[in-house]
Amino acid sequence: MAPLGERSDDPVLPDPPQGPLHVARARASFPWKELALFWEGEDTLRFKKAIFSTLENDPLFAHPRGSRLSVEKYQELNFLRCKRVFEYDFLPVGDMLGSLPRVLALIECLGMYDWSLAAKFFLHVLTFGSAIYSSGSERHFKYLPKIFSLEIFGCFALTEVSHGSNTKAIRTTAHYDPSTQEFVIHSPDFEAAKFWVGNMGKTATHAVVYAQLYTPGGQCHGLHPFVVQIRDPKTLLPMPGVMVGDIGKKLGQNGLDNGFAMFHKVRIPRQDLLNRSGDVTPEGAYVTHVKNVGQRFSESLGSLSSGRVAIVGMSVVNLKLAVSIALRFSATRRQFGPTDKEEVPVLEYPMQQWRLLPYLAAAYALDHFSKSLFLDLGELQRGLLGKDRSVRQAELGQACGGHGYLAMNRLGDLRDDNDPNCTYEGDNNVLLQQTSSYLLGLLARGARIESPLKTVDFLDGYADILGRRFEGSSPEDLLDSSVPLAAYEWLVCYLLRESHQKLSQETRSGKSDFEARNDCQVYHCRPLALAFLELTVARRFHEHTHQPRVPPPLRAVLQRLSALYALWSLSQHTALLYRGGYFSGERAGKLMESAILALCAQLKDDAVALVDVIAPPDFILDSPIGRADGELYKNLWTAVLQENKVLERASWWAEFAVHKPVVGSLKSKL
Amino acid sequence: MAPLGERSDDPVLPDPPQGPLHVARARASFPWKELALFWEGEDTLRFKKAIFSTLENDPLFAHPRGSRLSVEKYQELNFLRCKRVFEYDFLPVGDMLGSLPRVLALIECLGMYDWSLAAKFFLHVLTFGSAIYSSGSERHFKYLPKIFSLEIFGCFALTEVSHGSNTKAIRTTAHYDPSTQEFVIHSPDFEAAKFWVGNMGKTATHAVVYAQLYTPGGQCHGLHPFVVQIRDPKTLLPMPGVMVGDIGKKLGQNGLDNGFAMFHKVRIPRQDLLNRSGDVTPEGAYVTHVKNVGQRFSESLGSLSSGRVAIVGMSVVNLKLAVSIALRFSATRRQFGPTDKEEVPVLEYPMQQWRLLPYLAAAYALDHFSKSLFLDLGELQRGLLGKDRSVRQAELGQACGGHGYLAMNRLGDLRDDNDPNCTYEGDNNVLLQQTSSYLLGLLARGARIESPLKTVDFLDGYADILGRRFEGSSPEDLLDSSVPLAAYEWLVCYLLRESHQKLSQETRSGKSDFEARNDCQVYHCRPLALAFLELTVARRFHEHTHQPRVPPPLRAVLQRLSALYALWSLSQHTALLYRGGYFSGERAGKLMESAILALCAQLKDDAVALVDVIAPPDFILDSPIGRADGELYKNLWTAVLQENKVLERASWWAEFAVHKPVVGSLKSKL
Repeated sequence: MAPLGERSDDPVLPDPPQGPLHVARARASFPWKELALFWEGEDTLRFKKAIFSTLENDPLFAHPRGSRLSVEKYQELNFLRCKRVFEYDFLPVGDMLGSLPRVLALIECLGMYDWSLAAKFFLHVLTFGSAIYSSGSERHFKYLPKIFSLEIFGCFALTEVSHGSNTKAIRTTAHYDPSTQEFVIHSPDFEAAKFWVGNMGKTATHAVVYAQLYTPGGQCHGLHPFVVQIRDPKTLLPMPGVMVGDIGKKLGQNGLDNGFAMFHKVRIPRQDLLNRSGDVTPEGAYVTHVKNVGQRFSESLGSLSSGRVAIVGMSVVNLKLAVSIALRFSATRRQFGPTDKEEVPVLEYPMQQWRLLPYLAAAYALDHFSKSLFLDLGELQRGLLGKDRSVRQAELGQACGGHGYLAMNRLGDLRDDNDPNCTYEGDNNVLLQQTSSYLLGLLARGARIESPLKTVDFLDGYADILGRRFEGSSPEDLLDSSVPLAAYEWLVCYLLRESHQKLSQETRSGKSDFEARNDCQVYHCRPLALAFLELTVARRFHEHTHQPRVPPPLRAVLQRLSALYALWSLSQHTALLYRGGYFSGERAGKLMESAILALCAQLKDDAVALVDVIAPPDFILDSPIGRADGELYKNLWTAVLQENKVLERASWWAEFAVHKPVVGSLKSKL
Repeated sequence: MAPLGERSDDPVLPDPPQGPLHVARARASFPWKELALFWEGEDTLRFKKAIFSTLENDPLFAHPRGSRLSVEKYQELNFLRCKRVFEYDFLPVGDMLGSLPRVLALIECLGMYDWSLAAKFFLHVLTFGSAIYSSGSERHFKYLPKIFSLEIFGCFALTEVSHGSNTKAIRTTAHYDPSTQEFVIHSPDFEAAKFWVGNMGKTATHAVVYAQLYTPGGQCHGLHPFVVQIRDPKTLLPMPGVMVGDIGKKLGQNGLDNGFAMFHKVRIPRQDLLNRSGDVTPEGAYVTHVKNVGQRFSESLGSLSSGRVAIVGMSVVNLKLAVSIALRFSATRRQFGPTDKEEVPVLEYPMQQWRLLPYLAAAYALDHFSKSLFLDLGELQRGLLGKDRSVRQAELGQACGGHGYLAMNRLGDLRDDNDPNCTYEGDNNVLLQQTSSYLLGLLARGARIESPLKTVDFLDGYADILGRRFEGSSPEDLLDSSVPLAAYEWLVCYLLRESHQKLSQETRSGKSDFEARNDCQVYHCRPLALAFLELTVARRFHEHTHQPRVPPPLRAVLQRLSALYALWSLSQHTALLYRGGYFSGERAGKLMESAILALCAQLKDDAVALVDVIAPPDFILDSPIGRADGELYKNLWTAVLQENKVLERASWWAEFAVHKPVVGSLKSKL
């Protein structure tokens, strides 16, 4: 991995610009550059800086000041930028597998710039590419160089109009015809059309299409992936039998062309079945090394797991951008004060600290979680389901009052672009159900409990943990994350016991397995899964911040972030801590509240410096109220006046000035 | 009030169209038309129907299928529609004061169609108009007919770039010059520019501008409103000294032109001071009947109160639209099932019921609250601060999975258009602080506690209420809203005591009043205000649903909604119920959860019919997945195929097909 171009007179971490935020920075308790180095590592910092500078210096990536693009123009520009990313070749194919941190950094950089661009690029290279690589075999590797030279453009077509989460119910068919050695891909009706597929709307020439495989005689062998050409790469016109188009404007990510496709008896060569889990002989016999249909099915969809980990990462990137904007705004926006003359930055209010600082702590905790999980996955190549933690940009936006509502400040785009992270690859609640079923399964097994990532090993102490009680007596006893971690372990064991009992009770009462499971979700299995995932994130962050290699000047601030994140997450479950007897008396709950407020107060002077570590350069952050200099109103005015026709009279002025309405003239038409 | 045009062959409540939702409707436990009549009254139903039909039949109001409008085009269309509303004259000026329910209904109808239109119309007629009427005197009434004939167009200019919530710190000045008998309106710098003002961007000719009034000699008399002409009504060009323009694209409501204005020594006649709370003689002497500056200030801003009540109403309208879309979708979307063959509507899942039905109950509870509050306000003309309850369309959107993310289904627009309801007229937390201060003040006063709306009268039993304990022993004991109401009364008294103790303690420890109040907000005063407001809403809904004039067939369903809303709101405070000893033992918390789930299960078959009562006609709801027939996928496909250039090749196809990138060709530029 060669270092990217870096001149020695160009420091990897330049000083932030002078301005009103300087005062806030001077109050920080730690050296932010040292934290940036510890947090990212020098190679990643240089890599990100090279990408960010490249985008900023290339006019193709200039933000469209003074005009808002139509969806069509936005899609065109997004495609041109995607092509340009290939020309820059930030991360050559050969380096990708060898440097997972750089893959993550590239997703982060392109995503921070624009999720439409990141999605277009990675859906083609990673999602489409790795589906072929991991579900196919040598006969399909011919497609890989074509992906990287942009000879073809790919998409991943699983979801149908009427089926998303329940992938088994997918209805597209692939009948094998031995007379021509072809598969016939067919959509029975419009409800079975492929839908929502990223890159399919206008760009893709090839799709990995999931369909039910039938052999002659009519036997169905379940869902299999096929490579289907949907457009002619020479003309971008559709192939015979394929009706393909764009699904229309979405709430966000409109630079990406999401599409639909219906197949009318489209014939593809036998070899284009991606045959890792099952194949069909020229004569039409089905052969597989996986005996069980369910297992074949899981194997065929295994490629979704890495996508799910990436979703955690994408949400975190949005959280980092949103807290950066909200905290810089709050450190410079002044409103009210002890006297009528003197106003204080809104970040000085405990209420504003409590609204924002836990999200800053969460940004760090989840950033560490998603990165380490991605690397673990790379090593283990097996699935622990990630959780796409709800990011709540909406709340952050509201913490910026009215100015957060101005489109140029970007909180709206972040929210709109982030929304799909909550439903991609299955409704969140379906994923949570998988997590709780896994935990209940461990308990039922009875054997020693352990897992490769050690996330469940503590459950071996299940019985002992259930006997624990909270023992703190002053807020100081809660200022280290070990205290909420112990409470979380109790909580998970308690919810596990409650869920197990409830499930047994529902089953005993004669309900079917389907009914019994559904009736245990709301107050049992769902909170169990959430508590377990929160514990996992909090524990990883605790271990990361308490390890010996943390530089001494950074220990205090990182450990405060860890404690704040863990306590604040835990505080959502206070009712259960009381109900199950872990907490008793008024004191316990009050201590937790005091500890959270104390941590907020301790962290508020570090907030701006903590943001400097996670915020991208101003060009990428692209938010007047979030710029690094803190010249809040000056930046806002500059941006307002750069918009199109700001001071110009409306083109339709005569509609007011000349053509007056006759009030009530249309009343008779009512 | 003449009845609007209504033909006898045109029933006020037509049957819903046939389709997949028919099955769901047939399962309802009550006659929905009877509920609609009880809920709205016949006059309002007819009035709304006439407005909805008028909009649907007028091509000017056609939804722009197949194209998304630029901001400029959208603002033009919105203005033309606003003019057309004057031509229809749905509610003649003379009728407005006499029929508050019709005013509310008109806001609801225009808002359900498009908030940009409702905002443009009502900011001009009600906000601008009533500011002149209620802050001015007879010499200003000349403006009123000009408002209703559209000779002038108005806006309300209070907020400045750097000051929103803290209105006292507003810096625009109005110096009186006796030599010409004029006021000189001036913005000291760009941070004091008026900003965010609706209708100011491109349309308004006149503004009610709030400025600090100075008399000769330099004495400042505080904030006063002035009528300032900002554009020439003949040309829509700005008046001398006024720099006025549009602030740019917002997250939503882009049909409304929000603007800014800076005044460079703009001279206006002395008479254009709106002089209800204070006036200046021709010679320059300040005269007022209100002695205290603070009181004068409150009086001058009193007109904001009715705006705040309207904000509650607007949030509720959005909630009604969002639950209508989400519930109709959930009753027709099938996913998974007891067997691989059979799939069930997602509304059959207890999890989905729990995610949506409490919001349906909230839509009814808050609809009743906002309407009755508006009518009370009309009677009392005094302020009880409303609370703009967070509506969480985001969550509702997520409950519709991916399809909720498609722009045409409108959940995004609803959320984007609703966002400002959370910060309009002051950050929510500032308003909550006013509410808790009011309650603490009552406790301190010691006298008998009562208020005109009787919302606080229960506090007379403060000491007794604090001694209450939860006594239910089975879920059935919680199925009436009287049980959560009793718990809420205890909760408010508990938080009042806690807040009072905390505030005394902070003050005794030597903190200033400003500091002490700030340090009591997060876990004391804020939850106190929220609990009090939730109690108020729940109590009104309880009383409304338990009154004798509720028709017998509607009683069960309405009382279930009341119980669900109250229990679900209360369940957010379970930790405090335990901590303060109102709940003890595991049983209490479990009973509450069981009761919520039981109510959800009881209400799920009524959900579609309950939605029919609050949903507008399909043309107004304008959401393919929310149409009344429930032909989910058919409607979605129709809408997708009606979009612009759906199946057409991208105009930039050659950028892919011909101009291939040379991978890595720009690498040297890194």
